[in-house]
Amino acid sequence: MHIGVPNETTRAERRVATSPQVIAALIAEGADVSVESGAGTAAGFTDEVLAGAGAEIVASLTDTTPLDILLRVTPPDDDALKLIRDGGAVIGLLAPAANAERYLAQSHIAAVALESLPRSTLAQSMDALSSQATAAGYAAVLLGASSMPKFMPMMVTAAGTVPPAQVLVLGVGVAGLMAIATAKRLGAVVYAYDIRPETKEQVESLGGRFVDAPTQEMDEGGYARAVDDETAAKQREILSDIVASSDLVITTAQVPGRAAPRLIDRADVERMEPGTVIVDMAAASGGNVEGSVPGEVVEIGGVKVFGPDDLASTVAADSSRMLARNLLELVKRMTVDGELLIDPDDPVVGPALVKRETPDE
Amino acid sequence: MHIGVPNETTRAERRVATSPQVIAALIAEGADVSVESGAGTAAGFTDEVLAGAGAEIVASLTDTTPLDILLRVTPPDDDALKLIRDGGAVIGLLAPAANAERYLAQSHIAAVALESLPRSTLAQSMDALSSQATAAGYAAVLLGASSMPKFMPMMVTAAGTVPPAQVLVLGVGVAGLMAIATAKRLGAVVYAYDIRPETKEQVESLGGRFVDAPTQEMDEGGYARAVDDETAAKQREILSDIVASSDLVITTAQVPGRAAPRLIDRADVERMEPGTVIVDMAAASGGNVEGSVPGEVVEIGGVKVFGPDDLASTVAADSSRMLARNLLELVKRMTVDGELLIDPDDPVVGPALVKRETPDE
Repeated sequence: MHIGVPNETTRAERRVATSPQVIAALIAEGADVSVESGAGTAAGFTDEVLAGAGAEIVASLTDTTPLDILLRVTPPDDDALKLIRDGGAVIGLLAPAANAERYLAQSHIAAVALESLPRSTLAQSMDALSSQATAAGYAAVLLGASSMPKFMPMMVTAAGTVPPAQVLVLGVGVAGLMAIATAKRLGAVVYAYDIRPETKEQVESLGGRFVDAPTQEMDEGGYARAVDDETAAKQREILSDIVASSDLVITTAQVPGRAAPRLIDRADVERMEPGTVIVDMAAASGGNVEGSVPGEVVEIGGVKVFGPDDLASTVAADSSRMLARNLLELVKRMTVDGELLIDPDDPVVGPALVKRETPDE
Repeated sequence: MHIGVPNETTRAERRVATSPQVIAALIAEGADVSVESGAGTAAGFTDEVLAGAGAEIVASLTDTTPLDILLRVTPPDDDALKLIRDGGAVIGLLAPAANAERYLAQSHIAAVALESLPRSTLAQSMDALSSQATAAGYAAVLLGASSMPKFMPMMVTAAGTVPPAQVLVLGVGVAGLMAIATAKRLGAVVYAYDIRPETKEQVESLGGRFVDAPTQEMDEGGYARAVDDETAAKQREILSDIVASSDLVITTAQVPGRAAPRLIDRADVERMEPGTVIVDMAAASGGNVEGSVPGEVVEIGGVKVFGPDDLASTVAADSSRMLARNLLELVKRMTVDGELLIDPDDPVVGPALVKRETPDE
């Protein structure tokens, strides 16, 4: 089985869809792995290191024999799909909602989107959305802490005490939990909020304080129902007050298939003190914060509002390592006796296959 | 008593020599405080906030009556000294070694250098070198962590465990201790080394591991004696090995009045893995690391070497607050019945006065 890993390095993308450890594991499974020269450099994996793990380093994957599997961090263009043999597969974070038609047009291959894996224990070790959200939540706190004129921890000095920073995390999914844990590590006082009531216990188990605003019930899919107007107004008032007193606000609220919910409007930002910071992790999907711009930092009344679109990439070594392990587990699931076998009825692989029946996936 | 605070904002300097709390305290002591417009903005202290604390905001200190005291973060130019009345004083981090002659030429004023305060408990609350080194040590770790492609803490995920980063701190003074504490907070495995044997216990009390290399005795002034060749070679060999296995190295070794000691040479840097980071906090005073450049980041064999010259300024709100409190304590020591009184025989103020007798200070 021939597996290829391309060079995806751009300004925003420093990750690579493999790691030295995973290359060794794939080779132990009987695969050949070709990696484009420089693909791992931004993640700290040099050609020498990857070759040492057993990869064949090539100037371009077009120089190699057709691939059984192309591994990707981001959606490939059509030319990249031509590197794959008939009956082969591309696997990665393929953004199927935006790209399904393009993959389906290449009928000689299967497209397996990590985003569409079932959220079950069977697929937990392949859950790239979670592993990359973990990396992004950590990186969001470092970005915020580095951009603040205040310390995160309390400082006790001979000339007096400097109080700790107050951090607010809105949205308590994987990224939010990691942000809470990292801000706590750094010594901040951490508040957090999510409309899902069951997150209160998770926040408190990490040492955070759950903001006392109305929460609500979930639908059968595990996502929040739309809130009524009165609840929404009450939420907004309580959140606006806690935003106003925060040194760092990190927003992480996403709703799959829809624009991210607006949690903070311009008036809320303007109530914050000059020198405070907001990191809107949902900027690229519509934004939790009014005025945030994907990939940029804007200043609103002395408040820095970041809309980063490459947080996981800022810790590219470890985010690539985690993604590579997710991919390894999925490749192993799709391999029988060293040969690629794509089973549309498999409870893990089936849902992840880009199919015409599920164009809204 | 009329106290003036100028605007010192430059690329590298975001601090200001006061804070809202200290303005209120000075006014409670009977002083008038004039602050140049914008002086606190980069530290998050707007004109409104400072005026609210009781300061008079002026476009320029040249518009006010002559000052009894000019407070400075950095050395003032000669024009700034003309703002001070006959018999008045300038107080701040005045870099007396480089500037003494210039201050002495202005014979109508006294120059009080925070760097020259005695290292005694009497002056502890005024110890600006320590308060600013605390800020810089914290900021160095954030800079390093934000620039590394690796996480600091261990991450346990469904797809496996990512090991923690290894951080090495060389030089265990105030900045080094703060760097150790901050890296430990973030979950790294922290090694540290200093030639002074008594630092071992301090390192271990913070959860760090003391590198097992030769240490040495101090002279009567508390500074390390020059090491013999054999000891130096042994130190270098052990340190080179631990540098080579580190993800982040922070160097803080300074020797007052001399160039900083070279701790890491180019061959050591080249042994480090691509993607690792060095922060040379001594870059501006000669450098602990061969190849570091003050105020810049250079890449040597895939290793990022930072030579920051503005670390305390990156946390300008809190470093200014601490510096302002140091200045407040010193101003109070120099005040009798609401009037400035410069007593050259005072055990705290005396040593800090720039005098012709101590041109090497």
